[in-house]
Amino acid sequence: MTQPRPRAAVVVTGSELVRGERNDRNGPFLAAEALRLGLDPERITIVGDRPEDLERALAEGFDADLCVVSGGLGPTHDDRTVEMVAQVAGRPLIVDPALERQIESVSRMFAERMGRPYTEFATGVTKQATLPEGALSLGLAGTAPGFVLDTAGSAVVVVLPGPPRELRRLWPRALETAPVQRVVERAPRRGRAVLRFYGTPESAVARALAEAGGDGDGVEATICAREFEIHVDLVYDADAEERAEALAALLRGGLEHYLFSEDGRSVAELVLERCRVRGLTLAAAESCTGGLVAARLTDVAGSSDVFRGGVVAYANDVKENHLGVSRALLERHGAVSAEVAQAMAHGVRERFGADVGVAVTGIAGPDGGTEEKPVGLVLVHAVGPDAEKARHMELPGDRETIRSRATVAALHLVRKLLENRHTAE
Amino acid sequence: MTQPRPRAAVVVTGSELVRGERNDRNGPFLAAEALRLGLDPERITIVGDRPEDLERALAEGFDADLCVVSGGLGPTHDDRTVEMVAQVAGRPLIVDPALERQIESVSRMFAERMGRPYTEFATGVTKQATLPEGALSLGLAGTAPGFVLDTAGSAVVVVLPGPPRELRRLWPRALETAPVQRVVERAPRRGRAVLRFYGTPESAVARALAEAGGDGDGVEATICAREFEIHVDLVYDADAEERAEALAALLRGGLEHYLFSEDGRSVAELVLERCRVRGLTLAAAESCTGGLVAARLTDVAGSSDVFRGGVVAYANDVKENHLGVSRALLERHGAVSAEVAQAMAHGVRERFGADVGVAVTGIAGPDGGTEEKPVGLVLVHAVGPDAEKARHMELPGDRETIRSRATVAALHLVRKLLENRHTAE
Repeated sequence: MTQPRPRAAVVVTGSELVRGERNDRNGPFLAAEALRLGLDPERITIVGDRPEDLERALAEGFDADLCVVSGGLGPTHDDRTVEMVAQVAGRPLIVDPALERQIESVSRMFAERMGRPYTEFATGVTKQATLPEGALSLGLAGTAPGFVLDTAGSAVVVVLPGPPRELRRLWPRALETAPVQRVVERAPRRGRAVLRFYGTPESAVARALAEAGGDGDGVEATICAREFEIHVDLVYDADAEERAEALAALLRGGLEHYLFSEDGRSVAELVLERCRVRGLTLAAAESCTGGLVAARLTDVAGSSDVFRGGVVAYANDVKENHLGVSRALLERHGAVSAEVAQAMAHGVRERFGADVGVAVTGIAGPDGGTEEKPVGLVLVHAVGPDAEKARHMELPGDRETIRSRATVAALHLVRKLLENRHTAE
Repeated sequence: MTQPRPRAAVVVTGSELVRGERNDRNGPFLAAEALRLGLDPERITIVGDRPEDLERALAEGFDADLCVVSGGLGPTHDDRTVEMVAQVAGRPLIVDPALERQIESVSRMFAERMGRPYTEFATGVTKQATLPEGALSLGLAGTAPGFVLDTAGSAVVVVLPGPPRELRRLWPRALETAPVQRVVERAPRRGRAVLRFYGTPESAVARALAEAGGDGDGVEATICAREFEIHVDLVYDADAEERAEALAALLRGGLEHYLFSEDGRSVAELVLERCRVRGLTLAAAESCTGGLVAARLTDVAGSSDVFRGGVVAYANDVKENHLGVSRALLERHGAVSAEVAQAMAHGVRERFGADVGVAVTGIAGPDGGTEEKPVGLVLVHAVGPDAEKARHMELPGDRETIRSRATVAALHLVRKLLENRHTAE
């Protein structure tokens, strides 16, 4: 065994988060960063702004080697992170005059930009310029300051603002500070292999992993199912690289028909990449996914050189007028049918002058299902320059689940259409 | 003060969650449920599947009155929740033969449906039928069993499967069990008021709240900014209802131009509702948001009676051919311009036979910005039967943030277009 990896804990604070009104995005980001740096992400704790809850979570988090705290740095009365970090670390609070001037000038700029009086922003300038003694300021993101505090006895603490965009801007600066560097330097190098499968159940992947010898001996394996994709993550110590590679090779061999990504790229990225390599353009026609296929593709920066656009065809006459689906076909087979999915894919391909067309139609529910065509029935169709592919599914789940599974299924169908090797459906 | 509210803790387990590879959705759902039931959601802890981490998180969670545990019930080797719950609660593990038969039959059905041999599913049937002594089974969701365990000394523990859909199906059954009922019955009735604002900064809302007397005295106020919406949440004890109402009235009065929702409904729901009431249909033309406006609208069940569809127009000739934007206009002003946004809105309205058209064009980045038209420049336009509205913004943030803020801005523009009273932009 190599030396133990430094442990990282994340404490996220925000009443709206602990009440479930908003999903936290900072915990996952920071945990992934810790993993990338070779640390061991141990836990993410989400608490509200009640002093006693925040104090307990911080005290637990300070047990780790690196504790990253997000949120509670704003100008309002319920932003108590700085105060509680100082208390748990046993440090007094000090106003930083330079920081105060900086926050004031940013606040004035914001006020001007939004055409609002500065007085609306003035509250909390001094509050936001107050830090625990010994803190290294990371500068501002918005009006919120981030800082690093080496508590000496326990964790190195990094405190960052809650808005994800501001947090992500300050995080690289935290990594450059000496206390954080010292923690990261203690991390032994760790390797990682990622395999993503589509079209096979989680238990089949688990069985293949067990038959390949399972994890242990310096290799940690995680299997996770997501919208019918199965993601396998192998994290290994430097001296277990050979064993991890052998494990990956066995998984690859046993499940090669289902393997679609080994570099962490999503199916949307792969579809765009395969189109780009072959000089193909793409267009989408969507009914039940209502724009999600297009949104998933355009979420990828640079998608505009491949993706020409698409039609969200909720109403039947939109399918007729904008995708050229004939009324006769709609009447004969219904809007949710393999025939209409095919006509939509061909229609969007032709009308948008694209090389590849993909279409989805289905019943996302909760209403609109019949015995013959139940909620969850989804038809996807993809057509390229020299081939086409179709798939019919009955997806379990609620409206959101059905829509997102149908989106992923449509993207995988395009991926398979563009693959050279023959793969199992 | 009324009696203290029973506390609820949520423990979410999954290596992919603690490593940040996936965002947890169960914690927020369960916390919101606890709040709805009058309990006090105290913390959400996310841990991996290492026995010692899970054990510590469970031990802390068992300190609460109700501890809901999600995940780690699957058939694979790293699903350790049942074993660890039994250990922390000091109960032996017992195989339930009836449950075992039930899981086997579901597994056989799954295998058949997917056209896979049953052997791929057989692993873990006995494992999944094993529960701590004294557990009340909640039945299956998928092949994963949920259960309730009254630990007597400490928390009532509810254990649910990790997939959000399965968790949400079993949760109502947990609420019907006697041990959970006993916890909920101890919760004093608690009221809640929700006010959502758009177009004013968080600090202005905070100041209005402070001027109205602030929280305390049985009223807890949370302010949270989200895609430029400011959500204020007032949670109050039964005997503080009058004070909470007075506070809400003062906020309403001081910020009425910005208030858009008092019942927790999203802007997409409000837009659909306002269209429905006036018998109007809606269509969307999107460039930089790439389908997100349509996706947000169609995420609402029943949107099909209002939303006819839309065009995602990434390429310029798609704007010409499918939205009737003239080439001259595109050449004169560029695709990212107020003139093109207006032409897109009019074009989609006419071509889709809708009463209301909304359009978004902009530069989401990270590339494509110029000095004159920087990344973050977004133009939105909405046109109805008797009026139109336009807005020009320079949004801060990364690609994802810009896209989601532009989406929300487009929806708010439609909302304002359909409002009778005159409101400030």
